Amino acid sequence: MNAFTYHTPTRYVFGPGAECRAGEELAALGLNKVLVVSGHSSARRSGVLGRVTDALTASSIEWTELCGIDPNPTDIKVRQGIEICRSRSIDGILAVGGGSVIDTAKAIAAGVPYDGDFWDFWAGKAVVKEALPVAVVLTIPAAGSEGSGNSVITLSESKRKISLRTDVALRPKVAMLNPELTFTLPPEQTAAGIADMMAHIMERYFSPTPDVAVTDRVSEGVLQAIVEEAPKVMADPTDYQARANIMWCGTLAHNGVCGTGCAEDWSSHAIEHEISALYGVAHGAGLAVVFPAYLTYVSRTKPAKVAQLGRRVFGVGESDDRVAADMAVTQLREFFGSLGLPLTMRELGIANPDITYMVERLHQNKGKVIGSYLPLDAEATAEIYRIAK
Amino acid sequence: MNAFTYHTPTRYVFGPGAECRAGEELAALGLNKVLVVSGHSSARRSGVLGRVTDALTASSIEWTELCGIDPNPTDIKVRQGIEICRSRSIDGILAVGGGSVIDTAKAIAAGVPYDGDFWDFWAGKAVVKEALPVAVVLTIPAAGSEGSGNSVITLSESKRKISLRTDVALRPKVAMLNPELTFTLPPEQTAAGIADMMAHIMERYFSPTPDVAVTDRVSEGVLQAIVEEAPKVMADPTDYQARANIMWCGTLAHNGVCGTGCAEDWSSHAIEHEISALYGVAHGAGLAVVFPAYLTYVSRTKPAKVAQLGRRVFGVGESDDRVAADMAVTQLREFFGSLGLPLTMRELGIANPDITYMVERLHQNKGKVIGSYLPLDAEATAEIYRIAK
Repeated sequence: MNAFTYHTPTRYVFGPGAECRAGEELAALGLNKVLVVSGHSSARRSGVLGRVTDALTASSIEWTELCGIDPNPTDIKVRQGIEICRSRSIDGILAVGGGSVIDTAKAIAAGVPYDGDFWDFWAGKAVVKEALPVAVVLTIPAAGSEGSGNSVITLSESKRKISLRTDVALRPKVAMLNPELTFTLPPEQTAAGIADMMAHIMERYFSPTPDVAVTDRVSEGVLQAIVEEAPKVMADPTDYQARANIMWCGTLAHNGVCGTGCAEDWSSHAIEHEISALYGVAHGAGLAVVFPAYLTYVSRTKPAKVAQLGRRVFGVGESDDRVAADMAVTQLREFFGSLGLPLTMRELGIANPDITYMVERLHQNKGKVIGSYLPLDAEATAEIYRIAK
Repeated sequence: MNAFTYHTPTRYVFGPGAECRAGEELAALGLNKVLVVSGHSSARRSGVLGRVTDALTASSIEWTELCGIDPNPTDIKVRQGIEICRSRSIDGILAVGGGSVIDTAKAIAAGVPYDGDFWDFWAGKAVVKEALPVAVVLTIPAAGSEGSGNSVITLSESKRKISLRTDVALRPKVAMLNPELTFTLPPEQTAAGIADMMAHIMERYFSPTPDVAVTDRVSEGVLQAIVEEAPKVMADPTDYQARANIMWCGTLAHNGVCGTGCAEDWSSHAIEHEISALYGVAHGAGLAVVFPAYLTYVSRTKPAKVAQLGRRVFGVGESDDRVAADMAVTQLREFFGSLGLPLTMRELGIANPDITYMVERLHQNKGKVIGSYLPLDAEATAEIYRIAK
């Protein structure tokens, strides 16, 4: 187990009607004038946006809207948001949505008090020292951004998709989670969210750090809960209890508790980011394709932890690591398939993936060698893209 | 899964030398003049107290000491601490020790800015609204007080032992955890700590709330890690990795993540508190006696979750709940026994426990019926004391 610091000061308010507490929660943070960031029409149509803004008004908090955040959000809306905040002396951001909306809110929050261009933080030229407080009403359990200090933004011009990781600077102050808000998610979005949260755990789990019994066991526990609850939400999208379990799994998957003391990996995310940046696919669906391909590749030379995943999460009984690892990958693939997720790039709608280009971009963005469980060079990542074809 | 709020803003600094960061960590909290609270001579003898105060001095933080905190700490030292803090305008408390020291530090922190008597909070006559910031250098992984908002204090005169639970008011701002500091713990203290942390998880796990798959799985994961790592620390007290895993388990056991969405139980703690208040035994050793007795009792009418514990944590293969529950209790008892823990009140050194008196006090302190997994009246708690004899 490595030395670590772990600091997750986000306050989680979980349960039916959580979004209606936006007023009191933001007032408790001392906010007076907030930017409400949201996606396209669904939050408005479902009434959640109205309930949230009513709650703000009832608590005498002024608000301005920035809507229309796209999946794989870009710098364009971030710049718009920063301008609005500066011109109206806004003192906090409330994201109402999923990962794209929250990540945009965080980028705006970082950009407002910063003299230079906000992209400096994503480009590694500056470190976020201060930011407007960010609050969240979560509507899509997937990205885990409601409990993380991270934000993934794509530069619209170059399509560079970069994940910024901060310790606490960009962690939401409060996250309101109402599982009922997820009842109306289309099945493909529910499924992609499940793949995303599983990937967040596995990116930490596939670590070269030995002797992390407690972190492994916690991670395996959350994965087991997802595997148990996912079929229930797919069968009945209005099953409150299953939705609640999945929603909380998504937060725990990414707030850091599944990675304490571990060198993390994150190569599957990096590999997937090139796919979604280039072909605009849903990140979670992309991960359902990439992660099994990644595990197939690493099992060839380092099957031990893949086998452990199989035994502890999927009930694989096989004692030989190599065989157990193969069985684990098969089970994971079958599980993703049972949720209706794509299993190949072809099924993602990419008939002729430009692997050479993606590999080139990947290593330009992330360095010659990526990952830590098994360090991957361009030859390795090209092979993973080929396995994923 | 019940609605819940979960807010654990404690910053954990974990690894070798963590205590040497006391200066910078407390300076980052803006503290200038702190009260360093510790137990008897061990922290001084081992050198940890010296390293901590050197670090404070190096960061230009003034400090005053309050030492000699006993196990099962009382109001006497709390009152002394409050006086010192007020007379010297102290702005923060640093606990260097285990649960008793941390709980005393929290009680002092709550008492200093309060006009009335600090015991009002424990007596339920007032609610903690403000407190001095508390920081911790942990030396005994057991009580989990480094990550909780709770504090257990005994009133010296009446021997009333009361646990105060706060949401965030008394949560430490920062907890420094160096597993090396636990190398020198005597085996009986290591073992009692392990029983204590397991009990903290099980008090949450034995909940009447259904559909808490993720919380159950996380709890079972931490319990499994404890069961795996405990024999290693008992066999080699200087096994850093095993000590690190056990230390982090102790924090996760009690910082709330094992209880999200559950009505918690806490009857075993209440039953044990009467034993340790009256006979002065170590709390963890008392729990090793009480918890299996509690589980024996509840298994008679509500074996399902005891059976689940057996199957998922102790590998019990039995399908009948009643039988599996009995096997779970036997395994738990054998596990405690393997750590050298007492299994009966007699082995605790209490030849003739005054059950009538303890039952009377228990229900005076906690109400006619205690617990939530299976509500227990005086007849039930008397039977549990008898099973524990």
